[in-house]
Amino acid sequence: MKIGYAGMGIMGRGMAANLLEAGFDVTIWNRTPERTGPLAAAGAAVAATPAELAASCDIIMLCVSDTPDVEEVTFADEGLLAGLGTGKLVVDHSTISASATRRLAEAVREVGASWVDAPVSGGSEGAERGTLAIMAGGDAADIERARPVMEAYGKSITHVGPVGSGQMVKQVNQVLVVINGLAVSEALLLAKAGGLDLDATIEAVKGGGAGSWMLANRGPQIVDRDWRPGFTIDLQQKDLRLVLESADELAVPLPATSLVFQLYRALQRRGLGAEGNHALVKALEELAGLEVTRE
Amino acid sequence: MKIGYAGMGIMGRGMAANLLEAGFDVTIWNRTPERTGPLAAAGAAVAATPAELAASCDIIMLCVSDTPDVEEVTFADEGLLAGLGTGKLVVDHSTISASATRRLAEAVREVGASWVDAPVSGGSEGAERGTLAIMAGGDAADIERARPVMEAYGKSITHVGPVGSGQMVKQVNQVLVVINGLAVSEALLLAKAGGLDLDATIEAVKGGGAGSWMLANRGPQIVDRDWRPGFTIDLQQKDLRLVLESADELAVPLPATSLVFQLYRALQRRGLGAEGNHALVKALEELAGLEVTRE
Amino acid sequence: MKIGYAGMGIMGRGMAANLLEAGFDVTIWNRTPERTGPLAAAGAAVAATPAELAASCDIIMLCVSDTPDVEEVTFADEGLLAGLGTGKLVVDHSTISASATRRLAEAVREVGASWVDAPVSGGSEGAERGTLAIMAGGDAADIERARPVMEAYGKSITHVGPVGSGQMVKQVNQVLVVINGLAVSEALLLAKAGGLDLDATIEAVKGGGAGSWMLANRGPQIVDRDWRPGFTIDLQQKDLRLVLESADELAVPLPATSLVFQLYRALQRRGLGAEGNHALVKALEELAGLEVTRE
Amino acid sequence: MKIGYAGMGIMGRGMAANLLEAGFDVTIWNRTPERTGPLAAAGAAVAATPAELAASCDIIMLCVSDTPDVEEVTFADEGLLAGLGTGKLVVDHSTISASATRRLAEAVREVGASWVDAPVSGGSEGAERGTLAIMAGGDAADIERARPVMEAYGKSITHVGPVGSGQMVKQVNQVLVVINGLAVSEALLLAKAGGLDLDATIEAVKGGGAGSWMLANRGPQIVDRDWRPGFTIDLQQKDLRLVLESADELAVPLPATSLVFQLYRALQRRGLGAEGNHALVKALEELAGLEVTRE
Repeated sequence: MKIGYAGMGIMGRGMAANLLEAGFDVTIWNRTPERTGPLAAAGAAVAATPAELAASCDIIMLCVSDTPDVEEVTFADEGLLAGLGTGKLVVDHSTISASATRRLAEAVREVGASWVDAPVSGGSEGAERGTLAIMAGGDAADIERARPVMEAYGKSITHVGPVGSGQMVKQVNQVLVVINGLAVSEALLLAKAGGLDLDATIEAVKGGGAGSWMLANRGPQIVDRDWRPGFTIDLQQKDLRLVLESADELAVPLPATSLVFQLYRALQRRGLGAEGNHALVKALEELAGLEVTRE
Repeated sequence: MKIGYAGMGIMGRGMAANLLEAGFDVTIWNRTPERTGPLAAAGAAVAATPAELAASCDIIMLCVSDTPDVEEVTFADEGLLAGLGTGKLVVDHSTISASATRRLAEAVREVGASWVDAPVSGGSEGAERGTLAIMAGGDAADIERARPVMEAYGKSITHVGPVGSGQMVKQVNQVLVVINGLAVSEALLLAKAGGLDLDATIEAVKGGGAGSWMLANRGPQIVDRDWRPGFTIDLQQKDLRLVLESADELAVPLPATSLVFQLYRALQRRGLGAEGNHALVKALEELAGLEVTRE
Repeated sequence: MKIGYAGMGIMGRGMAANLLEAGFDVTIWNRTPERTGPLAAAGAAVAATPAELAASCDIIMLCVSDTPDVEEVTFADEGLLAGLGTGKLVVDHSTISASATRRLAEAVREVGASWVDAPVSGGSEGAERGTLAIMAGGDAADIERARPVMEAYGKSITHVGPVGSGQMVKQVNQVLVVINGLAVSEALLLAKAGGLDLDATIEAVKGGGAGSWMLANRGPQIVDRDWRPGFTIDLQQKDLRLVLESADELAVPLPATSLVFQLYRALQRRGLGAEGNHALVKALEELAGLEVTRE
Repeated sequence: MKIGYAGMGIMGRGMAANLLEAGFDVTIWNRTPERTGPLAAAGAAVAATPAELAASCDIIMLCVSDTPDVEEVTFADEGLLAGLGTGKLVVDHSTISASATRRLAEAVREVGASWVDAPVSGGSEGAERGTLAIMAGGDAADIERARPVMEAYGKSITHVGPVGSGQMVKQVNQVLVVINGLAVSEALLLAKAGGLDLDATIEAVKGGGAGSWMLANRGPQIVDRDWRPGFTIDLQQKDLRLVLESADELAVPLPATSLVFQLYRALQRRGLGAEGNHALVKALEELAGLEVTRE
């Protein structure tokens, strides 16, 4: 079985490296060919176009930035679609629009191929270490077929429903992440204004009903004024844009999510887009003229 | 050492019963004397007034509904203050105003006594089973003195700072609880509108960056349409009122907390105040005309 | 007919001066007696206590800061209540709690007197020039009896319902003022970011469906960076506190009003409480790192 | 001078009829040719394609639904661009994206023609009666050239800045309209809960600092439960989508605008998209379980 991987960004490189390490026969492609160097040196074949990649492989993995990039890689003249045919399978690890995903799946189905949307969480570290959490949408048989491949970089692979469901679950995930982050921001601001010891406060509440991953992991980072990103505001905002588009299409009101989107936007304007998503607290700090610091 | 307990509500009864069981010499008092019956039968002495309770005990525990109740029990003609004197210690387990707490502490200090504010989390179950989490504010020596007593019903006892800090930490706790709850509400609404399997979605995201106690514990309850309270909307709203008063005194903007307060209010108007705080989702459901159900 | 006026603050002074000018027989009282000097020099009698004021006058006007002040002036040992009796009428021009107003009215009714709540809009200028708009709640007969007196400083006097209604209408008024102000803030921020000429933009839209008093009057002031108050943020916030208390008592969700309350609070923390309520725009400017200026 | 008009929707029909009535030599085009019948009968020539329309006219007016429609009419094989050339002028009365407008203007400039964006307010009634307010962006000379034509249906024609500015001002206008509408909604809900006479309340406050076009015109309609649209929720939401896209591009936080967008979305889900934009109050009513009615 031959495996293709399109997109040698920070995520794709890590995943493809793990595929090679696991012994798969891997062919790669990237828009800017320079980026294929390191993995080619490690033993990967290199395709000249997505069409060639699709034509020469059985399962083609994909990880690029956003919806238009996936559409470009798929539908361009020398795109994946031109090389796909009966029995081939595309697994898209990008985080993109759920409705666009369904259109992409429909298009490849017409040439006899299949599409699985499989966005990940766990960041570049997870891609390198092979500890990603993968939310997969598509036919069960397709996902089972891809599972041994994805296990090269995924710690957990959950089949969440038909095609598009992976993207929807990822969006649900992001809603939780950012509103939990807003909770941490308001909580720490109140704690600071109230004269509390911030470390002791986090310690006292994180184990109970107030607990969250964001509080336990990003709370201390905020108090340390450490803005290194697990996930940047720019990427978070890109994902929230997908969430808000879905909410619009599906006519669901998401008042807090949209509030966070407004606050992140203000931080982007201030040039903080490359900081971690927990820098959300800075929007409230700026508003209040109060910093959540130890002193 | 003689222990007093004022307030035989659902929380106080459980804590006092654990004190008796642990072998302490316990005297109790309640505004409506009928409620003292069961514990008196179990061996507790009964005081006629808070003043008598304070006069006859070394450490006096207190758990009543709200700030005015604590003030009444303390400052009334036959209130605690009338019986307090040098070396006595009051431990207030009620959730009340932090600034009122500081005034109460000042008043008892003038007669030589001390005040510890020690709000709890864990509900009536925690009080009965002795598994409460206690956030204590006050002098370290006072808290150490009360610690062996509180261990009769507290699983964890954290000293979080000077008097009033216990109440502030409890408020910070409530901010996190309600906004994390709002996150769960928006996330499940989006999941439902997007056609996802709700159980699979919660399962897929709860272990990662989107995880929270509210998601893991109240998420499934929402999908089951099980509105039995861990903590009722009415009580949550009472606590949020304290939070918003603090925020006002301290001039801290809390946009999401205040949004939740508005949404809970709407549910109270609809007669849902006795349901669990996770029924917050009903406000968004009502707005959207969409229910987060399995079908 | 003898007229009393309690409260020689900036509003009360202006109104009382207009009463003297209109030829009424006026007695005044103020907590700090120094403030009674100018009007005494202009012909007003001075009472030593509110009780004496009430005993010696037929209709007693009142304008103080907040609910507790009105309660103090009324219920203190030498308060109004001690001097009121059958046939006397109190007209309260303060902006205070509607439910407290109903309790005050009940108390004076028990001694045979009446209460009219008559909050005003139009500011200190309106009080001086006699151009206030007065929203009066109470019995029609009482309002008719007070009307000739109020006409000394009121341009319009509207009977809006039973006692307490004047305060409620004032609160409704404030909801509109602050949310319309928020509209102006967001609109001008978008205009600025979009590179528009701000004066031309206000001019182009203010006459149509987008028009409001706030836009026409405060919009240009914002563009001029002129923060002189028609109504200060501190006073606005005090009034919003009354609104939010009512909303809580009445269980009405007011998401935008409570958002403005949060934003004003942040400005107060930054020391801007004495600026005009249109300085709300600064909260959004601070957030966005963008100023709504001509350059 | 020959005038073209592309788009015989409810707005375009009215404007083109006024052009004929004013004596202009008018050629029309519509995607579905049936709709050209009535005006052809009234004397308008009919073009087979936008290219033909552009080729045969000096100034081409345009009014279609949304950004993609304008792009289609302009860039399609037989689109306007194919018929434009030196000295021709396009005046776009559609409400569309400001940034797309700048791209459209750039494209027609390359063939020697000009673009004016001139969104209108005043609805279909305004189009018929010739009383539209027109916000025009573009070169002053172009706008002056089109002014005599636009005067056939425009009561006011304001030049607000360079190309794209008309669209931006329209967006600013919409921000004001919807937030002022939110103000009316919260105010009337509070008034109702507070037991006020709604008509008297509107009357008492509309003339002062709380006043707005929305309050004066839509307030009474709400109390009458008259949901006939001046402007429908569906159209309002389409325009807010443009606003939120601009805000995203320009990185401006618009918390209240985005809250309204969420609330309208909920109403669309409930099937109320064809009601007037003042039906926003229904979102809060639904939430509160309270209707703003006279009884």
